[in-house]
Amino acid sequence: MNASSRRVIADLKELAKLTSDERGAQRVAWGATWKKAREWYAAKVVRELGLQVYRDEAANLWVTLPGESKRSIVLGSHLDSVPGGGWLDGCLGVLGGLEVLRSTMVKGKPPVTLHLVDWADEEGARFGRSLTGSAAAAGTLDAEKELAHLVDRQGGKLPDALADNGVALPRMGQAHAAFLALQAQAYLELHIEQGPVLESMRKPVGVVLGTMGVERHNLRFVGQAAHSGAAPIHLRKDAFLAAAEFALACRDISVRHSGKTPRTRVVATCGVVKVEPNFVTAVPGSTEISIDLRALDGKVLGKMLTEARRAAQQAARKHHVTVQWTPLLHITPRPFDETLMAMARASVKQVTGGAPELPSGPLHDASEMAGVVPTAMVFAQSSPGISHTRLEDTPLPALDKAIRAFMLTVERAVEHHAQLSRAEDRRRAGAVQRRRKRAA
Amino acid sequence: MNASSRRVIADLKELAKLTSDERGAQRVAWGATWKKAREWYAAKVVRELGLQVYRDEAANLWVTLPGESKRSIVLGSHLDSVPGGGWLDGCLGVLGGLEVLRSTMVKGKPPVTLHLVDWADEEGARFGRSLTGSAAAAGTLDAEKELAHLVDRQGGKLPDALADNGVALPRMGQAHAAFLALQAQAYLELHIEQGPVLESMRKPVGVVLGTMGVERHNLRFVGQAAHSGAAPIHLRKDAFLAAAEFALACRDISVRHSGKTPRTRVVATCGVVKVEPNFVTAVPGSTEISIDLRALDGKVLGKMLTEARRAAQQAARKHHVTVQWTPLLHITPRPFDETLMAMARASVKQVTGGAPELPSGPLHDASEMAGVVPTAMVFAQSSPGISHTRLEDTPLPALDKAIRAFMLTVERAVEHHAQLSRAEDRRRAGAVQRRRKRAA
Repeated sequence: MNASSRRVIADLKELAKLTSDERGAQRVAWGATWKKAREWYAAKVVRELGLQVYRDEAANLWVTLPGESKRSIVLGSHLDSVPGGGWLDGCLGVLGGLEVLRSTMVKGKPPVTLHLVDWADEEGARFGRSLTGSAAAAGTLDAEKELAHLVDRQGGKLPDALADNGVALPRMGQAHAAFLALQAQAYLELHIEQGPVLESMRKPVGVVLGTMGVERHNLRFVGQAAHSGAAPIHLRKDAFLAAAEFALACRDISVRHSGKTPRTRVVATCGVVKVEPNFVTAVPGSTEISIDLRALDGKVLGKMLTEARRAAQQAARKHHVTVQWTPLLHITPRPFDETLMAMARASVKQVTGGAPELPSGPLHDASEMAGVVPTAMVFAQSSPGISHTRLEDTPLPALDKAIRAFMLTVERAVEHHAQLSRAEDRRRAGAVQRRRKRAA
Repeated sequence: MNASSRRVIADLKELAKLTSDERGAQRVAWGATWKKAREWYAAKVVRELGLQVYRDEAANLWVTLPGESKRSIVLGSHLDSVPGGGWLDGCLGVLGGLEVLRSTMVKGKPPVTLHLVDWADEEGARFGRSLTGSAAAAGTLDAEKELAHLVDRQGGKLPDALADNGVALPRMGQAHAAFLALQAQAYLELHIEQGPVLESMRKPVGVVLGTMGVERHNLRFVGQAAHSGAAPIHLRKDAFLAAAEFALACRDISVRHSGKTPRTRVVATCGVVKVEPNFVTAVPGSTEISIDLRALDGKVLGKMLTEARRAAQQAARKHHVTVQWTPLLHITPRPFDETLMAMARASVKQVTGGAPELPSGPLHDASEMAGVVPTAMVFAQSSPGISHTRLEDTPLPALDKAIRAFMLTVERAVEHHAQLSRAEDRRRAGAVQRRRKRAA
């Protein structure tokens, strides 16, 4: 393990100790523990880097290490967690980014500017709206429309929680202008995978191809409740059996549309199932079921949805029930930047001998950034391949390799943009000379 | 409509008016409205028949019309209802039986004794234990073991509810000895079908073949919760998909084991489904599902259970999850008495021109009686074919025919047992004469 990895892991452990209890990390956005985590982080930045932390209008925390050029590369992730979360989700990327700044500084002024951002409320754990800070910066958040009405389980209002944190809802959109002013050329994020793919491939680190598009809907099958003894099978209108057929059909759809490589893999999930009247002696009269379809290829995602709609119709017809769809969420696939992915691939290969590629099913702040700036991500293996639990983990050797691969990726991106910057400087200088000659 | 039917329907309407609200009948056993219904009923018996109502130790209400012989025929059903029940379920049989007594009395002393019983707590609506009174009379209730610990949803204890009604739990078993002392030769019950079978056959009245056996179990499929985006299909352990396969397989099992006649029809129902964690973005880590299998033939029921167990194993294996079974209820099929069913068949045919036969999926007090005395039932059509709702109904012409067919069935049974009684009297008299001759 190299010195950088050792420092990042020490920081992660210190943060976990400060902000976790026996159920896991408790850094839920807008709450006291989250504030404590950010104060710890800001104090660390001042103490160890001599740099200031500043907040944009959407409560994102920024640190800037100025370079020879104002053209910049943004590194980031999030310090907030779900309740009872793990020790790596989000904070690995922030503290890994901090180490990039720390180890860059000792070599002198970098050729391009580096920004490190801790995005606010990536998880949406309390109010249900995730990627809040990064969406504001990317200019895709309509705060008045999307946030003003949100309440938590205790009835607390999001605008009040924002005000407690010094954020004025109507001004959040200004974070976008601030982001544009950075002249960002690239966004890079290190994150734990949150799934079992790398573990199943026995690979410590992976290059992320992008975040999958999502089609999320709620279905309600309605038949007729009846007594389990009195209603013969052929006279029933069993809403649950229709939902069961639909769920299995969606699994088949996802298998049929999945290619053999991680890039072409798609998923379908029925996560919510609610049966009524839900008695042992009652044929279900209605059943609510959710479907969550994901694919990296938008065309494939569209086909999956079409087939799922057909499957629901067939299941409804077979069981003599009706079905209604309510859309919950539509997210466009966000494929990452080929140039940056090539740098990540070279770096991961340099450290681990291979460069496995996989799409991300979960969304990340990088999904928002990918809409406004070339973006790439590096994943550290999850083992066990589970997430949003205190049992989330990456074995230390894999964590070390992931940190090193990410740092090399940033180095390559810095070098690449330094060259572009010098080339542009030469072009400009040449243009100035040509103008002078013409003028002379 | 004949005069008897008119009187029964008038009584039913009077009872409904007295003990229903806008949500339906509210005669839940042990409660105030149930007591009111029974007081109305007892006053009616005294006023119209000049007979006394007496209570056994299990709170069943008995009326006796003495006959030439002490050999007796028992008629009965229940005045209690579910909350928001219909106007016929249970009380049709009691008030139909009352009309039998009323119309028999005017013809003089019957050849055999007639008993009419209003069984206590057939529905089990408040404490979950159904057939309480009839089971006590049949000697199949272990009150200390089965009732002492039961509580309702408000935390009220069954023994306290019994005490409010003057019932001492340890003495309930004495209802069995009291029943044996009746020298009952037959039990006959008129009831609404509570299902769509007669309606689908366009038949107003049916002869019941018996009550189906029941195998009721709870299954718990356990896999691994995972993020809907992060977990590729082939690495999932989706507990809900296993439960869905199981439910569809059980439907297939019931179709495969169903013959073409109502007698050989069987059913399978998954009524309770509980998924965890039940989030749109979570692959279900565990799923609880109930199975309720019913058949009139005990061997068929046994085969269905074996096949359901195999289906659960296969579904679990396919989805890489485990499954555990918890038995909830085992009830032996109760085929009814062939001689009494022949009388019911003849009577239904006499009134309606046909005699459709069907098993009862729901249990009845007759299920308990069938274990200790020859038993038969007559069903009135349900239209719509639903039950345990204020929408429960039998069209008046069908109701009239059902009441008349039931009364004819009782007449036939009375005549049959009168003949048996006279034959036995002759046998006894002959034996006495022979003894005297030998003594002389």
